[in-house]
Amino acid sequence: MKLMPAQIEQFHREGYLFFPGLFSRAEMEVLHAEVPKIYAEQRPEIVREKGSDAVRTSFAAHTYNPAFAKLARHPRLVEPAMQILGEEVYMHQFKINGKQAFDGDVWQWHQDYGTWYADDDMPAPRALNVSIFLDDVNEFNGPLYFIPGSHREGRLEAGHDTSTTSYPLWTIDKETITTLVARGGIVAPTGPAGSMLMFHCNLVHGSPSNMSPWHRVIVYLSLCAVGNHIRRFKRPGYIAHRDFRPIRCLPDDCLLRDDIHAELQTKETA
Amino acid sequence: MKLMPAQIEQFHREGYLFFPGLFSRAEMEVLHAEVPKIYAEQRPEIVREKGSDAVRTSFAAHTYNPAFAKLARHPRLVEPAMQILGEEVYMHQFKINGKQAFDGDVWQWHQDYGTWYADDDMPAPRALNVSIFLDDVNEFNGPLYFIPGSHREGRLEAGHDTSTTSYPLWTIDKETITTLVARGGIVAPTGPAGSMLMFHCNLVHGSPSNMSPWHRVIVYLSLCAVGNHIRRFKRPGYIAHRDFRPIRCLPDDCLLRDDIHAELQTKETA
Repeated sequence: MKLMPAQIEQFHREGYLFFPGLFSRAEMEVLHAEVPKIYAEQRPEIVREKGSDAVRTSFAAHTYNPAFAKLARHPRLVEPAMQILGEEVYMHQFKINGKQAFDGDVWQWHQDYGTWYADDDMPAPRALNVSIFLDDVNEFNGPLYFIPGSHREGRLEAGHDTSTTSYPLWTIDKETITTLVARGGIVAPTGPAGSMLMFHCNLVHGSPSNMSPWHRVIVYLSLCAVGNHIRRFKRPGYIAHRDFRPIRCLPDDCLLRDDIHAELQTKETA
Repeated sequence: MKLMPAQIEQFHREGYLFFPGLFSRAEMEVLHAEVPKIYAEQRPEIVREKGSDAVRTSFAAHTYNPAFAKLARHPRLVEPAMQILGEEVYMHQFKINGKQAFDGDVWQWHQDYGTWYADDDMPAPRALNVSIFLDDVNEFNGPLYFIPGSHREGRLEAGHDTSTTSYPLWTIDKETITTLVARGGIVAPTGPAGSMLMFHCNLVHGSPSNMSPWHRVIVYLSLCAVGNHIRRFKRPGYIAHRDFRPIRCLPDDCLLRDDIHAELQTKETA
């Protein structure tokens, strides 16, 4: 998979690219079938919603689950990221965000780079997110909200929100959001399971709660240019990885092949 | 304003009718200008969001604010309700729901009649809501979510939710919502300020939180057939009114006329 120049230009202008239905239903089913197994595990990587058993986010499944280990090396995800960053990439963070039916809570407006800078000392915003919808995403089950063009503002002042939800986040104040939205509006890309969404690590985004009866699981690969690896190891290794080796991609059909096995990482390299 | 037979049939089938832009911008501005004055009042009628000063709901403004007193007698709202209910109507409840930018919280899935039955002993579901958008309503600032056709199930079992938000509500369980949505889906009517939305008192509805920078104020007239008035006076009179006299409509252009004054009700009749 190779991005065209117009797509790269669009990424730099808008801060994101959307590819509805890039993966097949069959490929998504391979991953979808693994999610309940991951959620059933009792490990520190699994963060639950405030006042509920619903899983909010689950880190580093690619280090212990064979199917997600393949996804973490998938060329349809990794190659466009390398193309945009102009360099080999490593996996800074890998998470499965399960915005569960009825219980899935809000993610306040934020930039991912805000957290990676403040907590992990990532030198520059030379990183991006690649997300894959494991479920159909519609306007009711907690789509991602983007403010187009907001990444061009650079890193914005943020406050550490440790109370709204169960996961602490550096969030952006109301006045700044109002200004950015007046300029760029809000978009909420929706599409079938298998859709891919790439976005700049400084793109301001959030997502609403999910009061619908439809689960909404999205996987995020946070890919960072190898030369831009983090310098501070304050957060656990399963949240901010310390394995800065470039990702080696598997074949494009890896998710559907039983003869391909991705290396699982040990706890130390995760 | 007179509904056509096809519209009445649609109301009975789907449980709601939507009239985008029924009121002019000028008419809405008359009301919009009054909202900050109402919110500035310190009275028990004003309910604020949990942990914030943002107004969640404000009751009975038609009993003390002259502009809203006119709205409460507006023929474009009251006449279609009489036509559907086949009887004169009185004002059971009048509220301004201010889902404020950033702070506006969720209303969980519920039927209004569930509360009117359980708390107020309203004999039958011969009542409906007429709502008017004072702001543009879009997918981001907390539109109403309806489950089409759900009113045909009659009154559903409900549990009293006194913890999720600042206003206690009889809400419907997840299993029932899942079944109803599988059958009818979810719709979220959006449109400009001045749009009107009528819905059956047994239509299952809710609304998501508002994390956008756009305020979203909607006024609700809950109109009940005069012969179906409530029998229990447990809740305050400003929430469940005791004035069962039929509403007498004002002229259609009343909102823009200074020579028309609607009667304000005393505290006792509210």
